[in-house]
Amino acid sequence: MIQQKTIRLPQHRRGFHLITSTISRELGELPETGMVNLLIQHTSAALTLNENADPDVRTDLESFTNKLIPENDPVYTHVLEGSDDMPAHIKSSVFGASLTIPITNKQLNLGTWQGIYLCEFRDHGSSRRIIATIYS
Amino acid sequence: MIQQKTIRLPQHRRGFHLITSTISRELGELPETGMVNLLIQHTSAALTLNENADPDVRTDLESFTNKLIPENDPVYTHVLEGSDDMPAHIKSSVFGASLTIPITNKQLNLGTWQGIYLCEFRDHGSSRRIIATIYS
Amino acid sequence: MIQQKTIRLPQHRRGFHLITSTISRELGELPETGMVNLLIQHTSAALTLNENADPDVRTDLESFTNKLIPENDPVYTHVLEGSDDMPAHIKSSVFGASLTIPITNKQLNLGTWQGIYLCEFRDHGSSRRIIATIYS
Repeated sequence: MIQQKTIRLPQHRRGFHLITSTISRELGELPETGMVNLLIQHTSAALTLNENADPDVRTDLESFTNKLIPENDPVYTHVLEGSDDMPAHIKSSVFGASLTIPITNKQLNLGTWQGIYLCEFRDHGSSRRIIATIYS
Repeated sequence: MIQQKTIRLPQHRRGFHLITSTISRELGELPETGMVNLLIQHTSAALTLNENADPDVRTDLESFTNKLIPENDPVYTHVLEGSDDMPAHIKSSVFGASLTIPITNKQLNLGTWQGIYLCEFRDHGSSRRIIATIYS
Repeated sequence: MIQQKTIRLPQHRRGFHLITSTISRELGELPETGMVNLLIQHTSAALTLNENADPDVRTDLESFTNKLIPENDPVYTHVLEGSDDMPAHIKSSVFGASLTIPITNKQLNLGTWQGIYLCEFRDHGSSRRIIATIYS
């Protein structure tokens, strides 16, 4: 059995955000056993799994990623959409636009310390759309 | 229902290439609702989603990635297969060998600006093979 | 049809480790056609596909990744769990916690030179848990 839902995330500020509870709520009742694929339909944002406890992990991910893939690198030619745009595209491919998560006992079967992150790479990103495909 | 197909991409020059229409054509008629997993069976290439509009994004991804993961880094010991080989392996794992994309209304349900990229990391890569697994 | 299994990997030293045969053995008999999703339930380790032949590729991945995402970067504020912890979180998101692999003729349908890697990013990581979800 396959179900699909569109999840609309409200605008988030640039950075890494824990959205596990939002996603769980939007998915609603889950099947006993299965899996869910989440695809963010944007090329300047990403979805990833990381620590759900200390918020410093999210802050450090943002700081380090900005250093690893900086704005205004002299190699960029795609600069008309703002200095945050080309780095956002690169980060989107490095972190990835989709996640596949097992469902067990009607719940997302993540590790104890794992949460779903929205990675918002634009300074003024808009609302973001995720397609959730649930298999059971 | 599960269907599998092998897609053979012709040789591409080193760089990031938009292959959405090739993949759609090779997949043929898609089910009403489902998902497709694409796995590139190589360790010096990758598949990713990124902007389908401005070709400068592809050029900048190539330039920046070459700077981020350069050739001839002094830490490399795996050097016999050419200076482009070890960086190609690292890039393959950073960008990823597989993609899972929802199918809705018999079409790949990507965002308006999203396309499928073949990332060819070798100077003289050969034809590349992708296994497509379609679920419905 | 969906089957789920929990795979417990023994402790591995920090680095990249080829675990294809362990995973195949733990999965047991596979369906004729399908796919398997593997999720590592940790935020300081990852799963990736890369070369299954020359062990130098694994060594170089470890050396280069340590250089790309170093310990003791001045931007880190999450430092209480050791200098290897914050870089481990970043690497986990860059390499990714999950893999989806097609199954064909009752076997994992990887490329000739592709193997499954456990990426252990902690100096003293513990046993690691993987949830395998098999679709057919």
